[in-house]
Amino acid sequence: MLLHPDRLFPAEPGTRAIARALYTSVAQLPIISPHGHTDPAWFAINQPFTNPTELLIKPDHYVFRMLYSQGIGLQQLGIRNPDADPEQVWQLFARHFYLFRGTPSSLWLNYVFEKVFDIDQPLNAQTAAHYYKVINDKLAQPAFLPRALFERFNIEVLTTTESPLDDLRHHQAINDSGWHGRVLTAYRPDDVLDPDQPDFTNNLARLAELTGEDTSSWHGYLNALRNRRAYFKSMGATSTDHGHATANTADLSRAECETLFAGALAGTLNTSEADLFRAQMLTEMAGMSVEDGLVMQLHPGCHRNHNGPLFERFGRDKGADIPVRTEYVKALHPLLNKYGNDPRLSLIVFTLDETNYSRELAPLAGHYPALKLGPAWWFHDSPEGMRRYREQVTETAGFYNTVGFNDDTRAFLSIPARHDLARRMDCAVLAQWVADHRLTEQDAFELAHDLSYTLAKNAYKL
Amino acid sequence: MLLHPDRLFPAEPGTRAIARALYTSVAQLPIISPHGHTDPAWFAINQPFTNPTELLIKPDHYVFRMLYSQGIGLQQLGIRNPDADPEQVWQLFARHFYLFRGTPSSLWLNYVFEKVFDIDQPLNAQTAAHYYKVINDKLAQPAFLPRALFERFNIEVLTTTESPLDDLRHHQAINDSGWHGRVLTAYRPDDVLDPDQPDFTNNLARLAELTGEDTSSWHGYLNALRNRRAYFKSMGATSTDHGHATANTADLSRAECETLFAGALAGTLNTSEADLFRAQMLTEMAGMSVEDGLVMQLHPGCHRNHNGPLFERFGRDKGADIPVRTEYVKALHPLLNKYGNDPRLSLIVFTLDETNYSRELAPLAGHYPALKLGPAWWFHDSPEGMRRYREQVTETAGFYNTVGFNDDTRAFLSIPARHDLARRMDCAVLAQWVADHRLTEQDAFELAHDLSYTLAKNAYKL
Amino acid sequence: MLLHPDRLFPAEPGTRAIARALYTSVAQLPIISPHGHTDPAWFAINQPFTNPTELLIKPDHYVFRMLYSQGIGLQQLGIRNPDADPEQVWQLFARHFYLFRGTPSSLWLNYVFEKVFDIDQPLNAQTAAHYYKVINDKLAQPAFLPRALFERFNIEVLTTTESPLDDLRHHQAINDSGWHGRVLTAYRPDDVLDPDQPDFTNNLARLAELTGEDTSSWHGYLNALRNRRAYFKSMGATSTDHGHATANTADLSRAECETLFAGALAGTLNTSEADLFRAQMLTEMAGMSVEDGLVMQLHPGCHRNHNGPLFERFGRDKGADIPVRTEYVKALHPLLNKYGNDPRLSLIVFTLDETNYSRELAPLAGHYPALKLGPAWWFHDSPEGMRRYREQVTETAGFYNTVGFNDDTRAFLSIPARHDLARRMDCAVLAQWVADHRLTEQDAFELAHDLSYTLAKNAYKL
Repeated sequence: MLLHPDRLFPAEPGTRAIARALYTSVAQLPIISPHGHTDPAWFAINQPFTNPTELLIKPDHYVFRMLYSQGIGLQQLGIRNPDADPEQVWQLFARHFYLFRGTPSSLWLNYVFEKVFDIDQPLNAQTAAHYYKVINDKLAQPAFLPRALFERFNIEVLTTTESPLDDLRHHQAINDSGWHGRVLTAYRPDDVLDPDQPDFTNNLARLAELTGEDTSSWHGYLNALRNRRAYFKSMGATSTDHGHATANTADLSRAECETLFAGALAGTLNTSEADLFRAQMLTEMAGMSVEDGLVMQLHPGCHRNHNGPLFERFGRDKGADIPVRTEYVKALHPLLNKYGNDPRLSLIVFTLDETNYSRELAPLAGHYPALKLGPAWWFHDSPEGMRRYREQVTETAGFYNTVGFNDDTRAFLSIPARHDLARRMDCAVLAQWVADHRLTEQDAFELAHDLSYTLAKNAYKL
Repeated sequence: MLLHPDRLFPAEPGTRAIARALYTSVAQLPIISPHGHTDPAWFAINQPFTNPTELLIKPDHYVFRMLYSQGIGLQQLGIRNPDADPEQVWQLFARHFYLFRGTPSSLWLNYVFEKVFDIDQPLNAQTAAHYYKVINDKLAQPAFLPRALFERFNIEVLTTTESPLDDLRHHQAINDSGWHGRVLTAYRPDDVLDPDQPDFTNNLARLAELTGEDTSSWHGYLNALRNRRAYFKSMGATSTDHGHATANTADLSRAECETLFAGALAGTLNTSEADLFRAQMLTEMAGMSVEDGLVMQLHPGCHRNHNGPLFERFGRDKGADIPVRTEYVKALHPLLNKYGNDPRLSLIVFTLDETNYSRELAPLAGHYPALKLGPAWWFHDSPEGMRRYREQVTETAGFYNTVGFNDDTRAFLSIPARHDLARRMDCAVLAQWVADHRLTEQDAFELAHDLSYTLAKNAYKL
Repeated sequence: MLLHPDRLFPAEPGTRAIARALYTSVAQLPIISPHGHTDPAWFAINQPFTNPTELLIKPDHYVFRMLYSQGIGLQQLGIRNPDADPEQVWQLFARHFYLFRGTPSSLWLNYVFEKVFDIDQPLNAQTAAHYYKVINDKLAQPAFLPRALFERFNIEVLTTTESPLDDLRHHQAINDSGWHGRVLTAYRPDDVLDPDQPDFTNNLARLAELTGEDTSSWHGYLNALRNRRAYFKSMGATSTDHGHATANTADLSRAECETLFAGALAGTLNTSEADLFRAQMLTEMAGMSVEDGLVMQLHPGCHRNHNGPLFERFGRDKGADIPVRTEYVKALHPLLNKYGNDPRLSLIVFTLDETNYSRELAPLAGHYPALKLGPAWWFHDSPEGMRRYREQVTETAGFYNTVGFNDDTRAFLSIPARHDLARRMDCAVLAQWVADHRLTEQDAFELAHDLSYTLAKNAYKL
């Protein structure tokens, strides 16, 4: 057995009993996955996954960054290396699985091994071949096709993330297929908002084609963005997402906007002007959310592609994105002063800088009607990360200015594992607060249900 | 029953027993409240409180900021809205009381409901009318007059906070009344130290009137401040308090001071000059504390009135003050190099930026004889906030460079609730360290007494 | 009895039993002390320690900073005061020993009292004289000579820290003596890398003498540094150590380096140029580590000698070094982009700014092959500090990107106490994760051994 039924529950028997009761009440609730990075093609095409390595190692940057940190080259893991034998990669992974002790990856992976593939021996060099065979065989069965797994995972709704330049053909195909699985898109316009993206001008040209708007004018550019929002919304989107280096926002005059936009098009903005343009665009996006009701998500504070040589050779998303210190109070001031009191806006903010939980974000979310806090994100999507989040956020923002759980993953099979972990940790924290009489048991049962299901569904208008 | 007798104690039975024993030994100690914002007029005039809404909702920014964050307008809560029916406001509050789950407000309010008003049903929409009636009826009784409550709360000393421009008539009236309750003032000179205050020059004119000093000269200005300190001290004050945006201090030459002061009077200082003036004034205040022995408190690091539109309409103290990142090591360097080794100075520093507990403040307080750490403040005046404070401060600064508890409140009825919570949390932390044999039980009993009573009394010279 | 056998273990009985079992399995392992500040002369000369005050108070800045913070002058403690009577200093210390409640110093000292000197009464004013006599008498016995204690402490290897200008005569004497105790040096070149050191140019002249290199040229300077590294390595050194104000690194052209070096020699660098020079030198040191295999340690982020008047009178290392906010992601970027993927480099980074654990350092160490995290350092070398370290680092970096424990002390007698505390806390944390089924018991036993012994031995190539 890889998974103990009481895993992540407090050790003290009375508290554990409360946690178990709370968890039992929410364990079977459907999964609301309002933010993530799975590939909609999987559900549109519904072909078998290739093999264990392609499915479980190569899309999971948590996995290969740890292996890389211990001296295993990405090419050895088959990344940008078509000659790598997937079974040998799996062996290599298995031999080093001990590196994941104490990490959420080990908890997620063991869940996948036991609950999805029905394996009950620990993964190591000795069991690697058995694992590979069992998983490989199962992937060929109909019960392991993407749609079948989606249903088995009891996913009520799964949101993917696409650029405004995406034609959403896979979402269209899913809609057309008659399959009842609900796979929505979210509008992620970074590549048409960020003048530092290498393809920025090409992207704007493509945006013009898609919308018939003149994206060489500020006015036309905004209309084109609005147009694609409407298209995404017509395809089921309920949210936008914004991955910026900082949380900076701005509220400039139209003339200033036009000047900056001209510079962005001409490629003449310096670093601080480009930052100001992105800052202004967040406020523009908030304004459009007031109009069209799309929930706005902001994911700032990451130094992307920190490892230059690795980026040159292997490209982005290779585990070299590193969080940086992030400021929210001054940064969000322009946007919040413009729209923060407007009940039509819902802005969900995330952080990789946990110092902001108690200092900036909980106080902001505990005041502004438009602002809510996203869950513990990325490196902090972990048992201790979740505990710190609840302990540092709740006393100032309460539970109801938070939005439930996001799995934020491209590792499809880990989705139930991640939601299960989140539900367990929420119940563990609630149980401790029941045990020391900060909460009544009745309140805790309601809260467990809200944190596992209702808050996400409501916050994302699903 | 709203309050469990073991609330906030660790769940593990052995540890809980230790916590209970420690708490029992301090539960009945008198309250030392050395820093707060209650209205001295209450005790001077001793009239009944108006109604539950006026008493419990409108002075409590913790309460209305949470309600506001969930879309309830301040006008609906009766703020700047004389037409609001207080009982309807109470109903609105009661319907949304679930928002406070997991917050210290729910713990404080339930304490007030049960211990002060003898109500034992949970507050919700169904019980709201009953609550209103019970509380309203009691407020009309002599036992619920301010002085009677002061005595019932077993308050040994209560300190309010006044501007040097205040004539302290209410404190005078209390002294003259023959009532034995000890209500002291503290000297809070922000409005005559901060050139960015809109009324700065008027305030200096008023200061001149009160003192007979020429506040248009640097020399006369300092004398006037000194004069009012002496007056406050003669009225019983033992401390000053300073609410600055940063912890910056300076140690300038007299010529530089005179130039800055002239600019402050003329209203010509730019942002950094105004900050430098305030920085210098903190060092001046420290120098005067060396002379007159008033304990100096510094409360920095808050972005005040972050919500511009709300401030325009409803004014200050409406729940829109947000903590910001704060630096102490460089900031306090000038003041500490001048007076930090002087045993006549006692400077108590607070923070809203918890990252400073282990990094800057505990190391500073564990070295400088003049420096002590104030308790977990404002948003961190909460069970988890207090636990973080003890866990992050104690190992470097010990217990004896801290100063006990401050309630810092304008919500008079919450004072016993807040002190009770602080005593429980201190005993909970001590109990854990006894249980794992970091402290002896005998030491823990002494510490519980010191943290609940002695440290505050000594640190504030009460 | 001063020490409970279950100290620092979790209170919950089941978890405590696991912690006890884990600890029992590692309690007797030899001590690997790969970084510290003991005096090699003790082991070269092997003379008795003078008296309890010289041995236990005067070298321990944790002790006298706390006493100083409570108004006890350093001269009263015998520092720079040859007239002070050591027994009276001991009395003073004993009377104030209660100040250390809740600090690691009290745990370390009680360990020394009981385990090294076999005293079982608490230290206080009444027992002070007894303590002084017992310790003083024992220090005169052969069993309390430095080498005898080294052996009794079961130290497998002890590393001291020397300047490249040191001739390592004491290490030579130890080697020549035939004593089997392994006392190594580490190469700490701050005084020849930092142009802001008052003796910088003299130090370079001395470096030239020692190496025969022309240290007035950039080329000769680098060669001289390389030459001394080789000498240190020949004497057994396996590591270098760098104490910089920031973690800044640079990767400049040769021409830029030569210009900066000329300015450093001429004493004409401004603050930011001096910082850039130091930044470049860290990258140079990393390059030399790639060549010679010396493990590189970086200890940044401290404001040294914060208390000016105290520094004037008593000099450095008097408890007035204060941590400051520190940045790593941008700071280490140049070095890591040059050498971070090179398996020949091993860079161990420490922090006094705990906010970096989860935000910057664990993500960096969980990616770069060359980077590892040093243990909780200095003010954070404490039970709660270690707990925060494990809870904030492990989920992202795992255990195997950390390097075991450093005692980092000049208080020789505290070495076993500190390692014992670290082993207990690691076992306590592991036990909690076993109890809530995040780790298997088998994995935890392996980890306890690795954290107590193997990781340090491997990371430092000992």
